[in-house]
Amino acid sequence: MDIVILAGGSGTRFWPLSRRLKPKQLMSVFGGKSMLQRTVERVIPLRPRRIMVVTNALQAAETARQLDYLKDMPIDIIAEPVGRNTAPAIGLAATIIAAEDPEAVMAVLPADHYILAEEEFRATLLRAAAAARLGHLVTLGIKPNRPETGYGYIEAGQMPDDAGAYRVQRFVEKPMIEKALEFLAAGNFYWNSGMFVWQVRVILAEMEKHLPELASALRRLNIPPDTGDLPAALAPQVEAVYRQLKSESIDYGVMEKAGNVTVIPADFGWSDVGSWRALPEVMAPDGAGNVLIAGEGINIDSAGCLVYGGDKLVALVGVKDLIVVDTEDALLVCAAERAQDVKKVVEILEERELTDYL
Amino acid sequence: MDIVILAGGSGTRFWPLSRRLKPKQLMSVFGGKSMLQRTVERVIPLRPRRIMVVTNALQAAETARQLDYLKDMPIDIIAEPVGRNTAPAIGLAATIIAAEDPEAVMAVLPADHYILAEEEFRATLLRAAAAARLGHLVTLGIKPNRPETGYGYIEAGQMPDDAGAYRVQRFVEKPMIEKALEFLAAGNFYWNSGMFVWQVRVILAEMEKHLPELASALRRLNIPPDTGDLPAALAPQVEAVYRQLKSESIDYGVMEKAGNVTVIPADFGWSDVGSWRALPEVMAPDGAGNVLIAGEGINIDSAGCLVYGGDKLVALVGVKDLIVVDTEDALLVCAAERAQDVKKVVEILEERELTDYL
Repeated sequence: MDIVILAGGSGTRFWPLSRRLKPKQLMSVFGGKSMLQRTVERVIPLRPRRIMVVTNALQAAETARQLDYLKDMPIDIIAEPVGRNTAPAIGLAATIIAAEDPEAVMAVLPADHYILAEEEFRATLLRAAAAARLGHLVTLGIKPNRPETGYGYIEAGQMPDDAGAYRVQRFVEKPMIEKALEFLAAGNFYWNSGMFVWQVRVILAEMEKHLPELASALRRLNIPPDTGDLPAALAPQVEAVYRQLKSESIDYGVMEKAGNVTVIPADFGWSDVGSWRALPEVMAPDGAGNVLIAGEGINIDSAGCLVYGGDKLVALVGVKDLIVVDTEDALLVCAAERAQDVKKVVEILEERELTDYL
Repeated sequence: MDIVILAGGSGTRFWPLSRRLKPKQLMSVFGGKSMLQRTVERVIPLRPRRIMVVTNALQAAETARQLDYLKDMPIDIIAEPVGRNTAPAIGLAATIIAAEDPEAVMAVLPADHYILAEEEFRATLLRAAAAARLGHLVTLGIKPNRPETGYGYIEAGQMPDDAGAYRVQRFVEKPMIEKALEFLAAGNFYWNSGMFVWQVRVILAEMEKHLPELASALRRLNIPPDTGDLPAALAPQVEAVYRQLKSESIDYGVMEKAGNVTVIPADFGWSDVGSWRALPEVMAPDGAGNVLIAGEGINIDSAGCLVYGGDKLVALVGVKDLIVVDTEDALLVCAAERAQDVKKVVEILEERELTDYL
């Protein structure tokens, strides 16, 4: 199996800890290793033939620095000159892999997801690889444990195929709570994790069908044999091709249109950690629902608060359901229910050209 | 007139900006000059004979440093070896002044109060000095403009004396809101400002009556002629005397017991700035009731917040009625209505022996 890790996100919802040059996947949200490092380490026991990390030019240096300790592993870092969403990144990776082996199975993994049960995760990936060898586009569908309205859902058919995957009936946008409750009760709805497994010739064929412009651009790439530093050898071609590409997500561009999509049910404790608010779900809050990620804490009658204090003492007095993130030059104090609006702060910083804080 | 500024407070309610070595009066709460510096500058136009700043040993160095730019003024800094509340501090100052001139009028001013209308303040002090020459203990009573439950009140008699002061009927502890409303409606109740004016022989005579132990200790002091550095010359005696003194406030120890207390009505925009919550009263909040004391601010749908951000960017998202104070090593996030409990944080720091933060 080849692993493709999508690490080019520029997420702004973890501001002020996440910055342009250090987005969520490069952050050490949980202390210790970054989410990217955890993502790479998580697949190493699978002994993948190759790990391809697709990032962007801005973050390439920090990405390489963070993975330097794994330099004995077969890791290639591909830097996109500009971000064009997931379809071009996946198409590029598939094209590179196909030059060597069109039958290869590749897994696509976001670099910034949280996974609790790593063994179960790897077992699921292996099941998905088997399903992919049937010629399907396989998605990992997370078994929902609550009526979450922050994720898209996948509706699965009733009968599994020979590999235990179910045909995907439809993809559903983030639902209202009533729908989410129905999906949870129905039992055949899964969260769309953004993790995919397929043979490279299959995804490239689907791109020919549904994203012909992208496919045509990718076909013009002349992938040289890998003599050591493939990313550097490819960089000029990638640079030339990317400028012409349109932004397109793999979900809209391919998955929702393709006919041969199946879903492998997955249950390994997953979160896309989409905002500060998601952290208490995956960390251990105290009895009052507080999570102190970093720093020394003093709490007087406060509850439901997430605190990142760096190396600072943070005292909370009589406050409820707050997100408090203190960094060297910026402090965020945000109502937990408004965690999605942290990106608006970043927008305001951009408008005011306060680039030091971006 | 001699001015005695009480600057020995160790207020903990402005933590984390206030620290042991830099309590509220030495802080630059409003940007620029500290409250002590403002207090001293405020009386200089009165051309006082002498300004005596009574502080404590811990804060003496910073006090001297802050007043160094006024070294052409007749300022003496007296350092108490231990804090014994206001009665000993006032008794010591009165004893020193009396050695030179027992008829002298002294004004006692806390170093950490906010005063808006400085001209009116000085005019009031002059009226109070005239009233003091009638042989009374004169208090400055602030005309209340709201039913404040955080201040003590003074009930005044109906007929003013020749200097426009009213006999004090009684001192009233911080009232419940119902009482505070009554006081406000009655029209003859004033906030007890802790500012006093009297002749030194009068206050010393009252101390003989009501605080005989203190008076006896003070009588044993041998005040040398002021040949340049009176505080240093006095220090060994003060050191010896203070150890034996009991803590006593001038209010409980003298004012509430003495018979010859009058009040001069005062109206110059006053606050004792007793906690972070008092700051919005004396600063200019924005339309949503937010006050940004220091730092750069970004506000998305937040209201009623007081922010001290140092030189940091502080972003508030959807929060209400918070006090946010960020310093180099500590961050406070406190519900505005719990501002009084900031001192509990300091107590916890003491218990845990986290002395770096004190």
